[in-house]
Amino acid sequence: MTDDTAKIRLFVEAPLAAGAPVPLTREQAHYLFSVMRLGPGGRVALFNGRDGEWQAEVLEAGKRAGLLGCLSQSARQGLPPDLWLLFAPIKKARTDFIVEKATELGVRRIQPVFTRHTNSERLRPDRLQAHCVEAAEQCGGTYVPELADPAPLDRVLADWEPRRSLIFCDESRDARPLHAVAPSAPAALLIGPEGGFAADEAARLRGLPFVVPVSLGPRILRADTAAAAAIALWQARQGDWSGAGA
Amino acid sequence: MTDDTAKIRLFVEAPLAAGAPVPLTREQAHYLFSVMRLGPGGRVALFNGRDGEWQAEVLEAGKRAGLLGCLSQSARQGLPPDLWLLFAPIKKARTDFIVEKATELGVRRIQPVFTRHTNSERLRPDRLQAHCVEAAEQCGGTYVPELADPAPLDRVLADWEPRRSLIFCDESRDARPLHAVAPSAPAALLIGPEGGFAADEAARLRGLPFVVPVSLGPRILRADTAAAAAIALWQARQGDWSGAGA
Repeated sequence: MTDDTAKIRLFVEAPLAAGAPVPLTREQAHYLFSVMRLGPGGRVALFNGRDGEWQAEVLEAGKRAGLLGCLSQSARQGLPPDLWLLFAPIKKARTDFIVEKATELGVRRIQPVFTRHTNSERLRPDRLQAHCVEAAEQCGGTYVPELADPAPLDRVLADWEPRRSLIFCDESRDARPLHAVAPSAPAALLIGPEGGFAADEAARLRGLPFVVPVSLGPRILRADTAAAAAIALWQARQGDWSGAGA
Repeated sequence: MTDDTAKIRLFVEAPLAAGAPVPLTREQAHYLFSVMRLGPGGRVALFNGRDGEWQAEVLEAGKRAGLLGCLSQSARQGLPPDLWLLFAPIKKARTDFIVEKATELGVRRIQPVFTRHTNSERLRPDRLQAHCVEAAEQCGGTYVPELADPAPLDRVLADWEPRRSLIFCDESRDARPLHAVAPSAPAALLIGPEGGFAADEAARLRGLPFVVPVSLGPRILRADTAAAAAIALWQARQGDWSGAGA
């Protein structure tokens, strides 16, 4: 980041183009003008998931609203490699963590799935979406992963498009290590709940033609650790960790 | 885990051997007898970092104390690959997370380092040690990483044993990806603070003969994400993720 680019990055809904006006939400106005003390002329970087990153300046600063004006594009629109994350929601802080880490490490879609042992009562999609946006703002990406509606694993499997491999992070010790399986894209990673998959769920998964069971080392990983490790390994092997950003 | 092995694992200080008596701390007695409702004859798995894992049974159960007796060894003592993690302490929850993830993913030693931009006032080694122990208990390992005393980065570098590579997770974009650098062991991973390294710190690091600068993909990772991703990549490339556990 050079010195004349903005340090603050915001995700906005508005289209971004040279001279385009960008209205702020109440929360964004509070953040920029009360917390960060920006005033007219202050610089902010913006992205909306479609138009790349734009440098913008503050045109109007109010307590509950504000207006920015787009100046010039500072990064082209990127898209992470075609990797999805399927995970069974766990405790709130760890679920938040999974969503944050998946956004930083780079996935295109996040799909919460309910399994037999999932404790999911407290899942709040709006909260998870806010975590995705915040992580995208801080990680410098121009893309916010799509957060799919939570759905039962059975239904997700029944509707699966078989050309996408489902990399099943299996706790049984005989699966091959993730880093040793043949690369495949598009792909999705499946991380189980704290209690693991039920025996028949795991057996069903192993029998599906698009499922690739993999292991993640000799120790038992918590679900959030497994998610971060699996995404990192996939990205390093066949993702964008050697190339340009998203 | 077979059905007759204990589901509860505890780290203890006492030596473990057939018939050895193992006294419990007050906290352990409370956990086993009040929280988990175990009574005499109940099964617990024990490890102490030296004698492998042992199955034990409850001999005496009290409100504030208790005694277990070792039955038989259920896993040999293991040691993770010779990887250290050096990290600059960050916010409390994220520091706790780094220590937990490092233990699960497998490192031998954790060394907090103070850098120019480290905000470290709140670092509590006893708390971090407790997180290491808890993570080791749940991940099924027999080893608790050594938690080194926090020290200034300059001093750690001055005392460095040069045969150990220091893999410096560099935010500058021209470093090679971690997964593409030549394997080296013993090794240590260095993760910077939230604000990154100061320019002269980074320049000094890059000039040291044992330092290998690496990048971790195109997006900016938080320090805790970087730590988990870097350990996973190292373990998959040259660690124990294809072999036996620790």
